[in-house]
Amino acid sequence: MTDRLQQQLDFLMEIDRLKSVNRQTLITDRSRRENTAEHSWHLAMFAFVLAEHANEDVDLLHVLQLCLIHDIVEIDAGDTFAYDTSAYSDKDEREQRAADRLFGLLPADQHARLRALWEEYEVMETAESRFANAVDRMQPAMLNHMVGEMSTWREHGISEPQAVKRLSPIGDGSDRLWQYTREVIAEAVRRGNLTEG
Amino acid sequence: MTDRLQQQLDFLMEIDRLKSVNRQTLITDRSRRENTAEHSWHLAMFAFVLAEHANEDVDLLHVLQLCLIHDIVEIDAGDTFAYDTSAYSDKDEREQRAADRLFGLLPADQHARLRALWEEYEVMETAESRFANAVDRMQPAMLNHMVGEMSTWREHGISEPQAVKRLSPIGDGSDRLWQYTREVIAEAVRRGNLTEG
Repeated sequence: MTDRLQQQLDFLMEIDRLKSVNRQTLITDRSRRENTAEHSWHLAMFAFVLAEHANEDVDLLHVLQLCLIHDIVEIDAGDTFAYDTSAYSDKDEREQRAADRLFGLLPADQHARLRALWEEYEVMETAESRFANAVDRMQPAMLNHMVGEMSTWREHGISEPQAVKRLSPIGDGSDRLWQYTREVIAEAVRRGNLTEG
Repeated sequence: MTDRLQQQLDFLMEIDRLKSVNRQTLITDRSRRENTAEHSWHLAMFAFVLAEHANEDVDLLHVLQLCLIHDIVEIDAGDTFAYDTSAYSDKDEREQRAADRLFGLLPADQHARLRALWEEYEVMETAESRFANAVDRMQPAMLNHMVGEMSTWREHGISEPQAVKRLSPIGDGSDRLWQYTREVIAEAVRRGNLTEG
């Protein structure tokens, strides 16, 4: 019993390091880049508030669990910028090793449970994972739209077709959110934050 | 329909500011203080992983919702340091005004729902709010224990009786977690991070 609780707390202290993994996207006050821990909170709030727009009925607890754990592997594997195709080549292997080590800190039953949630998130074969992935793509697009001239879109010269390709899985989770995001993309092109491509 | 989604997204963009509300506690790598958005994620992970230790059966979805929204009012009201009794005098009034404005950005039904969750968290009359409050007190204690000499306990000369008073509500949510935290407090006294009082 004591060992079990100690394993759980060792895991909880280790994942504190997610607060030091930085993403590319700026927070809306433009003061700095977002870290993955606060991103995960923001994502869970997106899912909580926007769940009614999911294409399919979703179990909200299940969606929130996916949002909370989906990026924990970045503690070891780092954040891979969405538009960096070369870094994606060994992303899977890096993340599998990270999942082994990090979820492996937990008692065996919870290791299996969180590992299964993370794999479910990655393969997008359930309604919950499709919706969690949808908000995970919409959230940085909304931040980029808010910060406009300081967006990673503009920083990296991203084109409208690249953004559409990256963001279109939003529609697999929510037609309504994808429709809204298409309007955001069109406005970003008008403002010069995305190139016409 | 469009207005409803726009209200939801306006709320979600406004709460991005929680990432810029700093708490007193350092993160475990000691590089900086924790912000309230990443704290809220960490807390939700505590609740997720430790739910089995709750004194009463809890609805985990409900607990996670409490954890995610419990500190959103700090965007307007600021973080009140746990041991600052003078700042506590107008804390309620500041936080009520903040709740009016922030949750009021949402459509009426969600405004009512999130407001009710926040008030439930504050009054601690349900099993879920007792457990959420328990992990909300345990999480910073664990961070303080990890950073040792750089803890806010040591910075502010906190005594063992003050820590016990502050942290004892953990027992209302989980006897097991309170038992563990008592051991942490005793060890912190031995290491000189809490005074004997």
